[in-house]
Amino acid sequence: MRVLILGGDGYLGWPTAMSFAAKGHEVTVVDNYLRRRIAIETDSEALMATPNLQERVRAFKEISGRDIQMVIGDCADYYVLLSVVKQVKPDVLIHYAEQPSAPYSMMNFGAARLTLQNNLSVTFNVIWAVMEVAPDCHIVKLGTMGEYGTPNIDIEEGWLEIEHKGRKDKFLFPRQAGSLYHTTKVLDTDLLWFYVRTFGLQVTDLMQGPVYGLHTPESTLDDRLFPNFHYDDIFGTVVNRFITQAVAGIPLTVYGKGGQTRGYLNLLDTLQCIELAMLNPPGAGKLRVLNQFTEQFSVNQLAEIVQRVGNGMGLNVKVQNLVNPRKEAEDHYYNPTHSGLMDLGLKPHFLTDERMEELLRVVLRYRDGIHPRKVLPRVQWSR
Amino acid sequence: MRVLILGGDGYLGWPTAMSFAAKGHEVTVVDNYLRRRIAIETDSEALMATPNLQERVRAFKEISGRDIQMVIGDCADYYVLLSVVKQVKPDVLIHYAEQPSAPYSMMNFGAARLTLQNNLSVTFNVIWAVMEVAPDCHIVKLGTMGEYGTPNIDIEEGWLEIEHKGRKDKFLFPRQAGSLYHTTKVLDTDLLWFYVRTFGLQVTDLMQGPVYGLHTPESTLDDRLFPNFHYDDIFGTVVNRFITQAVAGIPLTVYGKGGQTRGYLNLLDTLQCIELAMLNPPGAGKLRVLNQFTEQFSVNQLAEIVQRVGNGMGLNVKVQNLVNPRKEAEDHYYNPTHSGLMDLGLKPHFLTDERMEELLRVVLRYRDGIHPRKVLPRVQWSR
Repeated sequence: MRVLILGGDGYLGWPTAMSFAAKGHEVTVVDNYLRRRIAIETDSEALMATPNLQERVRAFKEISGRDIQMVIGDCADYYVLLSVVKQVKPDVLIHYAEQPSAPYSMMNFGAARLTLQNNLSVTFNVIWAVMEVAPDCHIVKLGTMGEYGTPNIDIEEGWLEIEHKGRKDKFLFPRQAGSLYHTTKVLDTDLLWFYVRTFGLQVTDLMQGPVYGLHTPESTLDDRLFPNFHYDDIFGTVVNRFITQAVAGIPLTVYGKGGQTRGYLNLLDTLQCIELAMLNPPGAGKLRVLNQFTEQFSVNQLAEIVQRVGNGMGLNVKVQNLVNPRKEAEDHYYNPTHSGLMDLGLKPHFLTDERMEELLRVVLRYRDGIHPRKVLPRVQWSR
Repeated sequence: MRVLILGGDGYLGWPTAMSFAAKGHEVTVVDNYLRRRIAIETDSEALMATPNLQERVRAFKEISGRDIQMVIGDCADYYVLLSVVKQVKPDVLIHYAEQPSAPYSMMNFGAARLTLQNNLSVTFNVIWAVMEVAPDCHIVKLGTMGEYGTPNIDIEEGWLEIEHKGRKDKFLFPRQAGSLYHTTKVLDTDLLWFYVRTFGLQVTDLMQGPVYGLHTPESTLDDRLFPNFHYDDIFGTVVNRFITQAVAGIPLTVYGKGGQTRGYLNLLDTLQCIELAMLNPPGAGKLRVLNQFTEQFSVNQLAEIVQRVGNGMGLNVKVQNLVNPRKEAEDHYYNPTHSGLMDLGLKPHFLTDERMEELLRVVLRYRDGIHPRKVLPRVQWSR
């Protein structure tokens, strides 16, 4: 298949590009290095130096013999995106090209505006470029489980049938996110759904939980092919921060009570999910929403796993509760469905002690590069 | 009170400015003439020549002795808006400053992008300017009943308690709009609700139905003070189009079956509603949603009223069904609540035959200026 990946330099974009190229698909990636730029500006560079996209593509070719086409360009500029879509004529467009940090989106006006404008513009441009020059293309969009927030009812897979005063209708599941970043994904879904039902696009919107992991069949071939590993408070998720803190001898920083529960998945499962979505398109005029995670943990449970495995390796892992810099429920009901991708054939890689140890061992190799200042929260949700 | 009106040159903005100035409030209006520009570009100028805002303000001063401060500037430019808010320090900010045409938003990529960017940027800038320099200011935002679409359940006032698998929670009422313009208002509400619950802003979001009418205590003092009367397919609502067609001897153009039902209100009631919202702020950290209309009609019922009253005046009014240029249900359930504004004291002005005749008589005076080409649909929802 002809696959166009927007945000192909990212934590998920690059492993996806390698995985699909290795399987024989024709892969083109686009990226404008926005994450790299924000990382430099916020003192949040990744732990391991990541070669630029040209170098990554060359290294991958050298090692695997496979080609990946690349474009450095800004998908928020319509004519950049339109010309790429026109040239590639993709069967599938995978849209990862968003500012992905919740804390960054809450930092100040400029960061919030960049997040809103970038994320909405890219989604809007994707919709229009596909309508204009590749109307049969299947759009696979990365949303987030964070769109739903933490409601007091079971979270269904995208949609909810509501009975009210004796009458019924079906709606997008109500969404109420915890950061501006997550809210931009809510707006993305609203926009996509409007254009799907009005003009017959076909879209899969993946409500993904936090992803962890570094190892894929391709990334392990050479250190130059590793995904970005961020452990900072801006781009690092809680799993990466805890692993890094354990290795660096810093107490694991649990925000508030630590009862915040989310659905997580391994990077290998993200690759599977994207492929399953790609190989099973929903059909014209359909917005398919799938909840993309494999198991759920509270922050306290994650801290326990990292502590147990780390101590077993001879690290001395402590846990410390910080005043929560975010505005979020710290103790809440959480019961989201996630059967759609399992039904399509997803075989989960759960977070076993062995996998946690594997991650800790990789980060141990890079211990000297850890800057403790980056792992403490630098952005407050309050004003 | 110090009142800042964004979009003060508009059909609602200008009468609101005069009404509040006449009541002794300190009124400042901001406008960038976007609607005027789009009207020229799409051959959709208003029926009566409307003096520019400087002329309007001068005429109003001459006639009433009252001052209205004005700024010609673009609220989508943050620094323009921030400096106005900083200077005025409003008690209330009334946000009308959006691209208001559904057909325009569906015309092509450029028009769609302008609508999305303008409407979201102004709302975002309003949120931030208020947070930064006037945190106690009450934001009164014009939404639309169109945000809800036409669901098969009763439409409640902004919120819905949902019971699902034995558990309950309360959410924004699910929304599913019929045009990109209406969808931008859905996104506005999502953005406002995020910042209200996170940073404690106070916002009233008014879900308004189509407004008709030209007569207010101030607009009738002098023809130069009239609100804009658009009868074209871009800015004209169905009521204005029917009135104009009746006067010009063109059959009333009913789109499709004509069962499309909406809640309508008189311009006098919009002024009341805005004042009631302003005088009864919801309090910090509250997003109050009110459904703003007084009575509901189907398109066929409106055509009947115009036909009956027009024929009674000696006009020969015919009705013609056109293939619907829009994508919308033409025969649907519609039962929206609208008790909040009544509870605050709204005294409705219903669409009586006398009021319809009054409107027809005004438009008859301008009969020679009617261009039949402007009243037929020029934008299709399909591609």
